[in-house]
Amino acid sequence: MLLGKVIGSVWATQKEAGMENLKLMIVQPLDAGDQEAGQPVVAADRIGAGIGEKVIVSRGNPARMLFPERVVPIDAIIVGIVDSMEIAGQGGE
Amino acid sequence: MLLGKVIGSVWATQKEAGMENLKLMIVQPLDAGDQEAGQPVVAADRIGAGIGEKVIVSRGNPARMLFPERVVPIDAIIVGIVDSMEIAGQGGE
Amino acid sequence: MLLGKVIGSVWATQKEAGMENLKLMIVQPLDAGDQEAGQPVVAADRIGAGIGEKVIVSRGNPARMLFPERVVPIDAIIVGIVDSMEIAGQGGE
Amino acid sequence: MLLGKVIGSVWATQKEAGMENLKLMIVQPLDAGDQEAGQPVVAADRIGAGIGEKVIVSRGNPARMLFPERVVPIDAIIVGIVDSMEIAGQGGE
Amino acid sequence: MLLGKVIGSVWATQKEAGMENLKLMIVQPLDAGDQEAGQPVVAADRIGAGIGEKVIVSRGNPARMLFPERVVPIDAIIVGIVDSMEIAGQGGE
Repeated sequence: MLLGKVIGSVWATQKEAGMENLKLMIVQPLDAGDQEAGQPVVAADRIGAGIGEKVIVSRGNPARMLFPERVVPIDAIIVGIVDSMEIAGQGGE
Repeated sequence: MLLGKVIGSVWATQKEAGMENLKLMIVQPLDAGDQEAGQPVVAADRIGAGIGEKVIVSRGNPARMLFPERVVPIDAIIVGIVDSMEIAGQGGE
Repeated sequence: MLLGKVIGSVWATQKEAGMENLKLMIVQPLDAGDQEAGQPVVAADRIGAGIGEKVIVSRGNPARMLFPERVVPIDAIIVGIVDSMEIAGQGGE
Repeated sequence: MLLGKVIGSVWATQKEAGMENLKLMIVQPLDAGDQEAGQPVVAADRIGAGIGEKVIVSRGNPARMLFPERVVPIDAIIVGIVDSMEIAGQGGE
Repeated sequence: MLLGKVIGSVWATQKEAGMENLKLMIVQPLDAGDQEAGQPVVAADRIGAGIGEKVIVSRGNPARMLFPERVVPIDAIIVGIVDSMEIAGQGGE
């Protein structure tokens, strides 16, 4: 999974089948030093992540598997909101 | 999913099985500041995205899953046309 | 899918199960301005792409799905030979 | 798989279905010369990898397949703790 | 698939279910000019690739599919040892 920060949200009226009723957040990946690294990812969110929160995003098939009852053509979903993390040599956060 | 801008389209007469009757657009990924970032992606489009429009592209298996009735060997599809997005510290757009 | 140019071919006698009778081409990805961008990809080809031709390559599971009758452990296949493309602000090609 | 070093761990109370009871480690990918290379990956760990240990991480569907009895929406898991590796021209380690 | 050179091997005693009896090689990706490009990949090998040999590596699900009888949580496998390759403008090799 990638570690990122929620930096925004995005809305689309015209969309593919299965994209209804999904909250889509924009997540900026972070490196181990909490610096922005790489391109933003649009991820579905069902756990209420807010702007500025640090999150864990899972990509690929796992995102889709969380919707067993219908085809949801997403490739990224927020799977956790980070409470705390510990990086070697930096103590807790 | 990635955030990108539709910058063109591409046609192929000689193609693999399952690629018939697909509109293929060229999408340039964007970073959070709307700057071009990374290589263009060729994505199928069934929702009528036009040149210059900002879109959300889903990659990998999800694209293929939208065609349950036949094998369509694509790995990217436009799943939404962006109406609006909000980036922290920038207000709406 | 990625947009690339066929720059060569590769042969292997010693190979995994399911790799028999596959033509393997080396494809150099291109950016929107037709410049080389990123590392070359080895892709299977069943539609007769020639050296120097611009092609569309699909990666991941879709490549494998085109061989429903046996396990073919490939992760990339040429799905179209580009006839023409149009990039915004550049007219046709 | 990627070769990396475990540099930390991360906790999330608010999380998606299927993420319960997973230990999540932060792994920094390494290049062949053991230098840090690329963005950190959050990977599940069931084999007891400790901070500072060199590990092998598998990404994508394989991670999920290790949990056949339920949907676990992860895209990376530690599949081995490196005992030794040998790089050409460098002897053992 | 990616084109790479086998530069080493790696051993792990503590490992996930399904990783038993796999030979794991370290493969350095190459660009079209045979220069090192990008991070090394740990790939399973069942066809006897030796240090210094040029190989073709397939990533993602295809690697796993070669083991239909059990769950093998790998995401990369060597699918061919390169006998010869031809790059446009360079003649054979």
